[in-house]
Amino acid sequence: MSSTSSEEIAKSAKAAFEASQLISSAERIKALHVIRSELEALKAEILAANHVDLEAAQVEVDAGRMSDSLLKRLDLAKGDKWDSMLQGILDVAELPDPTGTVTYATELDDGLELYRVSCPIGVLLVIFEARPEVVVNIATLAIKSGNAAILKGGKESNRTTLLLSKAISSGLSKTSLPDTYVQTIQTRAEVSSLLQLDQYIDLVIPRGSNSLVKNIQNNTRIPVMGHADGLCSVYLDETADAEKATRVVVDSKIDYPSACNSTENLIVHESLLKTVWPIVAKALLAANVRLLCDPPTLEALESLSPAPENLQSHVQHSDETSYSTEHLSLTLSIISLPSIQSAIKFINSHSSHHTDCIVTESDAAASVFCRGVDSAGTFVNASTRFADGFRYGFGTEVGISTGKIHARGPVGLEGLVIYKYMMRSKDSRGHVVGDFGTGKKQYKHSVIQAKTVPF
Amino acid sequence: MSSTSSEEIAKSAKAAFEASQLISSAERIKALHVIRSELEALKAEILAANHVDLEAAQVEVDAGRMSDSLLKRLDLAKGDKWDSMLQGILDVAELPDPTGTVTYATELDDGLELYRVSCPIGVLLVIFEARPEVVVNIATLAIKSGNAAILKGGKESNRTTLLLSKAISSGLSKTSLPDTYVQTIQTRAEVSSLLQLDQYIDLVIPRGSNSLVKNIQNNTRIPVMGHADGLCSVYLDETADAEKATRVVVDSKIDYPSACNSTENLIVHESLLKTVWPIVAKALLAANVRLLCDPPTLEALESLSPAPENLQSHVQHSDETSYSTEHLSLTLSIISLPSIQSAIKFINSHSSHHTDCIVTESDAAASVFCRGVDSAGTFVNASTRFADGFRYGFGTEVGISTGKIHARGPVGLEGLVIYKYMMRSKDSRGHVVGDFGTGKKQYKHSVIQAKTVPF
Repeated sequence: MSSTSSEEIAKSAKAAFEASQLISSAERIKALHVIRSELEALKAEILAANHVDLEAAQVEVDAGRMSDSLLKRLDLAKGDKWDSMLQGILDVAELPDPTGTVTYATELDDGLELYRVSCPIGVLLVIFEARPEVVVNIATLAIKSGNAAILKGGKESNRTTLLLSKAISSGLSKTSLPDTYVQTIQTRAEVSSLLQLDQYIDLVIPRGSNSLVKNIQNNTRIPVMGHADGLCSVYLDETADAEKATRVVVDSKIDYPSACNSTENLIVHESLLKTVWPIVAKALLAANVRLLCDPPTLEALESLSPAPENLQSHVQHSDETSYSTEHLSLTLSIISLPSIQSAIKFINSHSSHHTDCIVTESDAAASVFCRGVDSAGTFVNASTRFADGFRYGFGTEVGISTGKIHARGPVGLEGLVIYKYMMRSKDSRGHVVGDFGTGKKQYKHSVIQAKTVPF
Repeated sequence: MSSTSSEEIAKSAKAAFEASQLISSAERIKALHVIRSELEALKAEILAANHVDLEAAQVEVDAGRMSDSLLKRLDLAKGDKWDSMLQGILDVAELPDPTGTVTYATELDDGLELYRVSCPIGVLLVIFEARPEVVVNIATLAIKSGNAAILKGGKESNRTTLLLSKAISSGLSKTSLPDTYVQTIQTRAEVSSLLQLDQYIDLVIPRGSNSLVKNIQNNTRIPVMGHADGLCSVYLDETADAEKATRVVVDSKIDYPSACNSTENLIVHESLLKTVWPIVAKALLAANVRLLCDPPTLEALESLSPAPENLQSHVQHSDETSYSTEHLSLTLSIISLPSIQSAIKFINSHSSHHTDCIVTESDAAASVFCRGVDSAGTFVNASTRFADGFRYGFGTEVGISTGKIHARGPVGLEGLVIYKYMMRSKDSRGHVVGDFGTGKKQYKHSVIQAKTVPF
């Protein structure tokens, strides 16, 4: 598709966003329910299209061009996936409205009121891979938060996402929201064109591989919310308890190795080399984890008698690249360091500022670690795998951000809103700045108690 | 200076930021007081350097290469500028600490606590023009909010800013904060190099001309907070009161025409062409404002008898470019439109999303305008000139943002902070994700009442 039509898509998304600002948020809730019904009505047709996508993907898998795990993620009929996709719409519909909330209100002068009120950001461009239900998840989050959205799924699920998108548009057309409020695009060329249109698109949310995210960050002026790397660490402090250390490290590594919040680097305080480290290492080796060790941690294992299970097959020397590699598998890089200060420096220069954990019995060390480590999540005696919007209690998750502005860590609906300032003069002559100053009126700045804007 | 040394500057700023995270915020307050004393001690030397800067600038002015207003902004000895610069340090020191505040806290399980706590962003790169006292203002804001900063002033004030910077470093060296916490650079080449170093610099804040800001936005991947254009509008609704309209429009235009929050476009509902518009126009003409009119508003003025003052000299035809021009002078572009809906569309496509105002007696119209206009400020019967951090009650202002994420409108200290999530397990075995799920433990998500992190 040409860049002209990408411009039309972006322009109509912005127009839909602007028009939607004058439609009550109750209509957005209604839209979610109608879309759910449309999806239910189109269920057979959608699952048939999904079956065709799956058959095409199976050919790719058989030819060795696609992974089996990618194929599995395509399947919309598997288990309770369809039902939980529809239930997700109702769950989001019932969350508190993230828009229209006053977060600051002050009377500048008698009859001159200022309100800071949460509002949607504008037009979101969301790019993701493989899993077709993400179209519905993201459309739901966008509609709930009052943002227009342009969605691009993986090409493997094009037939499925086309029909999901049809159901969404058809649902929107039965409400007063514009049916271009949520649009779906199919090609990478369209994405490239859209990334240039910062006059229409306000935020890009990539959800996919490291290379997808980096490529987008390098090719747009539009703000990008997300994370390229998930390089998390666990640090075993000198006071670490052996059982806590073992449980936390093993869970952080093996619970879901390909997730962004699984741990890739383990830092061992050098006082633990002959005490806690061998216990943790044995548990990791028993769990089939491959260990890339620096000389002291390697030596500590080699000197054990009897030799631990899997020592020969699973333990190797690390090199400098080991500590900046996101393994995404049952591999863990290990380094020993002499102090908590050196561990914090190591994490700040090697981790991706996602989530890092200390195992310690010392409150002072916990406090230093949580303040000194510059990451979205700093944990004490808890698995890095807890870094997740659902687990944090947000009900849903837009994604996880390793950026330093706007939203950081797991992002809930509040990451899709910003605020505007509304000001009203109730004075019979209006309010002008020229009436204030030395020898004239002074600003009052008296707090107004308000949760919503009264006009 | 070479890009190697720019990298060293950025790297040492990041190291200073990271080290500062383990220093209590009380030390930052102390630093502000010490810096104030250092400046006071260096006063004679600084003002002498400023005098040399001024003499060099006078040569440029005489040669027609610099404006007189720029020269005036350089002068640090003028009026109470020096004293208010020093008082500003004390004012900021006394503001509430924007860091360390818990904004979300929940117990995920017995003994597993999650805290979202405000914290500094990291390293700020602040680029501004002419006024040397901005070095002190921005250093103060950065230190108060716990961010490291790299500052670049205008070349016209290099001698002054070098000494201001010396006083700041000297002050920092008398505290436990690193003396590279605030650094000053002098050349554009260094700025260009620094804009590429997104691994060290977290936020760029340009404060200066439209072209400075646009140039920076186009040349960095680092998030930029600020505004290029300040194209504000006033819309006179069909129910507009003539006196309010006149006062608000005149103040919005003439109070400080070169400010970003002064009004550039006036939209007149077509029902007002023979009623309110002539009254407003006469007041503008009497105030020496040049009017660029569309045919209906021009015709309305030409048909008046007697002809208004300045009609021949000050009223001209507008063209399409008039409405996207930031005049920054006593010039106003005027258009008549048939409805509030068309006015909102016009503003959304022509204004810079900074601040826009409606003059109306209708609550319904006020509500529609404030929601429909997608700008940082939407005002009712109040001058656009009120869009300002001091007037909003923030005590100080980092700048005004027309971006759609992180911070919008006048930005106070809270625009220089983000948050991190701290999690602590108090369980004797630590907490792991593998213990939760179907048939296992469930997440509690019970609210914790806390204003600060208890560890």
